[in-house]
Amino acid sequence: MGSTWGNKLKISIFGESHGEGIGAVLDGLPPGIDIDLERIQHQLNRRAAKGNSLATPRKEGDQVEILSGIFNGKTTGAPLTGLIRNENTRSGDYSKTRDLMRPGHADFTSNIRYQGFQDYRGGGHFSGRLTAPVVFAGAIAREVLRVIKPEIIISSRIVSINGISDRVLPHWEDYMSLGKGFKNPAFPLYTPELEESMKNEIIAAMNDHDSVGGIIEGFVTGLEPGIGNPFFESIESRLASLLFSIPGVKGVTFGAGFDLTQKRGSQVNDPMVINSGKVETLTNNNGGINGGISNGMPLVFQVAMKPTPSIGKQQQTVNLAAMENASLEILGRHDPCIVTRAFPVVEAVTAICLTDFLI
Amino acid sequence: MGSTWGNKLKISIFGESHGEGIGAVLDGLPPGIDIDLERIQHQLNRRAAKGNSLATPRKEGDQVEILSGIFNGKTTGAPLTGLIRNENTRSGDYSKTRDLMRPGHADFTSNIRYQGFQDYRGGGHFSGRLTAPVVFAGAIAREVLRVIKPEIIISSRIVSINGISDRVLPHWEDYMSLGKGFKNPAFPLYTPELEESMKNEIIAAMNDHDSVGGIIEGFVTGLEPGIGNPFFESIESRLASLLFSIPGVKGVTFGAGFDLTQKRGSQVNDPMVINSGKVETLTNNNGGINGGISNGMPLVFQVAMKPTPSIGKQQQTVNLAAMENASLEILGRHDPCIVTRAFPVVEAVTAICLTDFLI
Amino acid sequence: MGSTWGNKLKISIFGESHGEGIGAVLDGLPPGIDIDLERIQHQLNRRAAKGNSLATPRKEGDQVEILSGIFNGKTTGAPLTGLIRNENTRSGDYSKTRDLMRPGHADFTSNIRYQGFQDYRGGGHFSGRLTAPVVFAGAIAREVLRVIKPEIIISSRIVSINGISDRVLPHWEDYMSLGKGFKNPAFPLYTPELEESMKNEIIAAMNDHDSVGGIIEGFVTGLEPGIGNPFFESIESRLASLLFSIPGVKGVTFGAGFDLTQKRGSQVNDPMVINSGKVETLTNNNGGINGGISNGMPLVFQVAMKPTPSIGKQQQTVNLAAMENASLEILGRHDPCIVTRAFPVVEAVTAICLTDFLI
Amino acid sequence: MGSTWGNKLKISIFGESHGEGIGAVLDGLPPGIDIDLERIQHQLNRRAAKGNSLATPRKEGDQVEILSGIFNGKTTGAPLTGLIRNENTRSGDYSKTRDLMRPGHADFTSNIRYQGFQDYRGGGHFSGRLTAPVVFAGAIAREVLRVIKPEIIISSRIVSINGISDRVLPHWEDYMSLGKGFKNPAFPLYTPELEESMKNEIIAAMNDHDSVGGIIEGFVTGLEPGIGNPFFESIESRLASLLFSIPGVKGVTFGAGFDLTQKRGSQVNDPMVINSGKVETLTNNNGGINGGISNGMPLVFQVAMKPTPSIGKQQQTVNLAAMENASLEILGRHDPCIVTRAFPVVEAVTAICLTDFLI
Repeated sequence: MGSTWGNKLKISIFGESHGEGIGAVLDGLPPGIDIDLERIQHQLNRRAAKGNSLATPRKEGDQVEILSGIFNGKTTGAPLTGLIRNENTRSGDYSKTRDLMRPGHADFTSNIRYQGFQDYRGGGHFSGRLTAPVVFAGAIAREVLRVIKPEIIISSRIVSINGISDRVLPHWEDYMSLGKGFKNPAFPLYTPELEESMKNEIIAAMNDHDSVGGIIEGFVTGLEPGIGNPFFESIESRLASLLFSIPGVKGVTFGAGFDLTQKRGSQVNDPMVINSGKVETLTNNNGGINGGISNGMPLVFQVAMKPTPSIGKQQQTVNLAAMENASLEILGRHDPCIVTRAFPVVEAVTAICLTDFLI
Repeated sequence: MGSTWGNKLKISIFGESHGEGIGAVLDGLPPGIDIDLERIQHQLNRRAAKGNSLATPRKEGDQVEILSGIFNGKTTGAPLTGLIRNENTRSGDYSKTRDLMRPGHADFTSNIRYQGFQDYRGGGHFSGRLTAPVVFAGAIAREVLRVIKPEIIISSRIVSINGISDRVLPHWEDYMSLGKGFKNPAFPLYTPELEESMKNEIIAAMNDHDSVGGIIEGFVTGLEPGIGNPFFESIESRLASLLFSIPGVKGVTFGAGFDLTQKRGSQVNDPMVINSGKVETLTNNNGGINGGISNGMPLVFQVAMKPTPSIGKQQQTVNLAAMENASLEILGRHDPCIVTRAFPVVEAVTAICLTDFLI
Repeated sequence: MGSTWGNKLKISIFGESHGEGIGAVLDGLPPGIDIDLERIQHQLNRRAAKGNSLATPRKEGDQVEILSGIFNGKTTGAPLTGLIRNENTRSGDYSKTRDLMRPGHADFTSNIRYQGFQDYRGGGHFSGRLTAPVVFAGAIAREVLRVIKPEIIISSRIVSINGISDRVLPHWEDYMSLGKGFKNPAFPLYTPELEESMKNEIIAAMNDHDSVGGIIEGFVTGLEPGIGNPFFESIESRLASLLFSIPGVKGVTFGAGFDLTQKRGSQVNDPMVINSGKVETLTNNNGGINGGISNGMPLVFQVAMKPTPSIGKQQQTVNLAAMENASLEILGRHDPCIVTRAFPVVEAVTAICLTDFLI
Repeated sequence: MGSTWGNKLKISIFGESHGEGIGAVLDGLPPGIDIDLERIQHQLNRRAAKGNSLATPRKEGDQVEILSGIFNGKTTGAPLTGLIRNENTRSGDYSKTRDLMRPGHADFTSNIRYQGFQDYRGGGHFSGRLTAPVVFAGAIAREVLRVIKPEIIISSRIVSINGISDRVLPHWEDYMSLGKGFKNPAFPLYTPELEESMKNEIIAAMNDHDSVGGIIEGFVTGLEPGIGNPFFESIESRLASLLFSIPGVKGVTFGAGFDLTQKRGSQVNDPMVINSGKVETLTNNNGGINGGISNGMPLVFQVAMKPTPSIGKQQQTVNLAAMENASLEILGRHDPCIVTRAFPVVEAVTAICLTDFLI
């Protein structure tokens, strides 16, 4: 329970960090959509660990095998399934620390929830590794959107790392150019000059056997007005339900988000104008959504990623088997900052969400 | 589409601001639950306009009639339906401004989405008035929780009004005492001394024909560990999908939320200890949730409410029928700040969410 | 749980036989659909008891009040709610027999399922009276189909009463003319001459304080090919889930149904031909569906209605409070044959099902 | 769309007859359930072609690989995925007949539904081969029921082949002994002496390059009263939605089914008695269900399977590419009667349905 999502496009993700494999089934795709496996793999590669100084030294291949749903290079309309075999898993790393609950992780909660039967190796089904099938599903969704709504561009950028902050919610016209690409696509910034200082935060944390978090801003241009619903099926509700499913996300805001709470209505109501026969707003404090429905302006939202809970520093924790206090140093290979791998996941769930609305 | 929510407890809300009535159907309630109609009405009264200086001068009765699902004072297990007749609606107020899109409202987006057939009077189905059936549903859910999980306390407080801010995320033990009640339940504050300055913000905005927003913090004590699911059915995903359905909400965070992005893992990982034979965390930066599942600590989350978009000040907007620019002053009775009426709604959706998980 | 159905069009029915009222909420309707309240009421009247010799002498008004979702005579796109107040309910009739389980009814099973808290008066939520909101929902669905698929005709006929049988599955072209109307719309027969002998069965049963059942055939002409899905969302699966929700239905077949099991493939495979540039089948043993998807031929299905379980004859039963054997004569007003009131319900669920597929 | 089912236990099936593989994902399983892979494989073998005179000469291995959800031999509570690789597929068989629509098959309807993009080889996703993942899912569900409701026995028997009929709905006590096993489990009969004459029907059809159908009766003993819901989530509605998803099923009845329509209420109302402190019915014409909810008697239902549409005899059909009439002889290996392979599928969906109700 919990690994299935969708109304018209149903996705089902499966797998554990150290099991046979991970994957996703997508049911409800329109038929006849060209699937470019290189573009799919490109999205998976964006998410995968790259073996550089900023991420875990593991080289994740994340080669996906299509098991069903594609025939002659196009979707058939039947469920599309992708399988990524797990490799390079050293289960031995984890058995020693099985009873030591890693603070900030799901070790304790999953133990209670699944009565100790969960696959505890590497976080099992709760592992960040499960974002790979999510990215796979999102890449398939992007292929659908390419065909049915070619004007839609889904992108994202890093807004902050450990408090080193780029500009938040610039003018909405800026998203039109941002959507065309970033100077460094692997570290997408509004202000590219901030890259070094942000990376220094990550490197400093790594050197201290510690970790840092940050803020990702997702955005969509080219989304027509009138998409979404009131209440429980609003764009905000649907997209937030996906964004909060990404491990490490603890906050989601749309448009000016919490800054709205410090402004008066007259300052943030987004005055409306006719521009070239189209309704626009001068500002975009509502992030492209009113009453749960798109208004034609860029869809903009921010996601708070907490620092990676896996750190090498000694931490105070409990031994659940012995029910006694303990201390823990998490050895092995861990990302000091998940933000640099998570922004493609943010884009993926956005693509899934919009495809579910638009097909 | 959009007005139905739930897995085990399905709720369906209906109605328009100026139609015959508004209401909710709850399907999936356990049988034999005592329903105290006074407690139900009390929750509705908390949300209703009170006719004081801080809210719209309308006196909303919001008397609910139970149409089904209760027999001899207890739930039957069949769908429970509550109907609130609309009264005191002056449709005449709205017809003149039908084509003038109120900035920050759903006027434009619902017009596109429903091709002009939506009931535009007072926002129709998009009106904040639709939170009354949500509060009704939440009040029923509370009755269920009273019986099946009496140790659970659901509460909320005002954290800020227009930037005047109370303490954010105090120590988790504070929530135990906060849950017992506030000095002024109609204006619940951690620091009661802030009430006057916060109210002054509202009054100042009102006097300027303007509006202000604020932050609400919802919290739950007594929730056992192990409730929730990974990914799409996490507590965060489910609760956020409900919170973002409340008109005016533009941000949702759990625990330390965006502050987590400025801290290192070693600072916010919530060290774990055994206390009186129970697992606890020293801090509660994760807001009582790890991996989507409750960890036994207080569930704490923050909700950003934007300033009420209905303001008397002149605004720049469009006339959609004429497709030309226009200006608008919204006359009539409007809340200068929705926060003071929204916190019972935040509690209501929390009750709905937890009931869906726990029955 | 159990009173909500639908993917794109979600319907939620509520109410008890002797409660305040019964009704339905429909969420997901397209906006701008003309709703003719006379046609709606006409469908309700078809189902309602008519006070003639063939049905219960109660005169059910079943006047529906629209609470939401219609504005200026058209759907708004927001949830549409209809409420039918209960009248003419004599609760006193039932209190004496509360502990005597009526054989063939849900008295015993609902007592176990709801732990005795169910509203037992007149069957409560299990009453056939709950088919009134279903017919209301179906009447709304018909209004949608009128606009979006005007070529679709949904109809039904009585195939048999207590074994007096009209022709089963005549040639598919016959359905084209049957769909235009029956000689006696209140007793729709392929062979009108059978009306008297069928009615005699009902009258004879009534005179014996007994009851009879029968078979209803539903059919749809004008349904284009390609509607439906494989497996769990096939037309058969979806429609059967609705048909079996009608109280008293114990069998559902499509096309030649059980007769197919006595024929060879070469006899029933429905040979295909091109006719005027369209693909047709010579016969229609598959009832218009292959692989769960419509093939453009008339959709034809049969529904087995058991004899009304409420009979005046003495029956052997149990007193559940005393847990002892007992005997029971059900007094009061009951239909000796439900078939004559159920065929509009069969049509209603068909309309709901097709609307859910087609919007 | 269409390949996902379930409320609490969500199953998702995928694959095509001649693609890489077929499989199923089950989300919502309770943790800690022992999974005996031999029992799982046994169920798959029951369904698989056995290479004998009664079924297709293909030897289907149907070896399932578990990709996720099992750890140390028990369910983890995370999604459980099984994959069956396709082998022994001769795609060449089908390319020649691609445009010739096989009568009685989904060739035409899937072509329209999926605009020609469906995998047409061997029926693709519509192939009877997709019942293998259904049987896999059912086998997992059986493992759950073994633990949580060990008293439940799910079984089935062949009631008729091409009109050669065994006894229909014997006394309910007979099911207690039938549930313990059949003389020939591969050809389960109430009256074993009928085996030869039934098989002769199949052989005769095969020799004529034709096919026959039949009736399967599924039954469940040991199901406690009070399981199920009214209306759309009744046992009948839920189970029928699954049974009609099995390729070839055209009818589903419960208890005495259509025979009820030829009896009076006094004959079929199932008189109730107290027996050893339990409520029982003397007869079981309602098939163990009243008002959609189990009554504690054996759950009994019948399923009409049409003759296999794939026959060697010449058939009249259309060439869809040329839009002209054509004739077709289906060469290759096909079951002359699907009944002997379908009864394990009937049991599988029953296990899935009950598990969804009972977890």
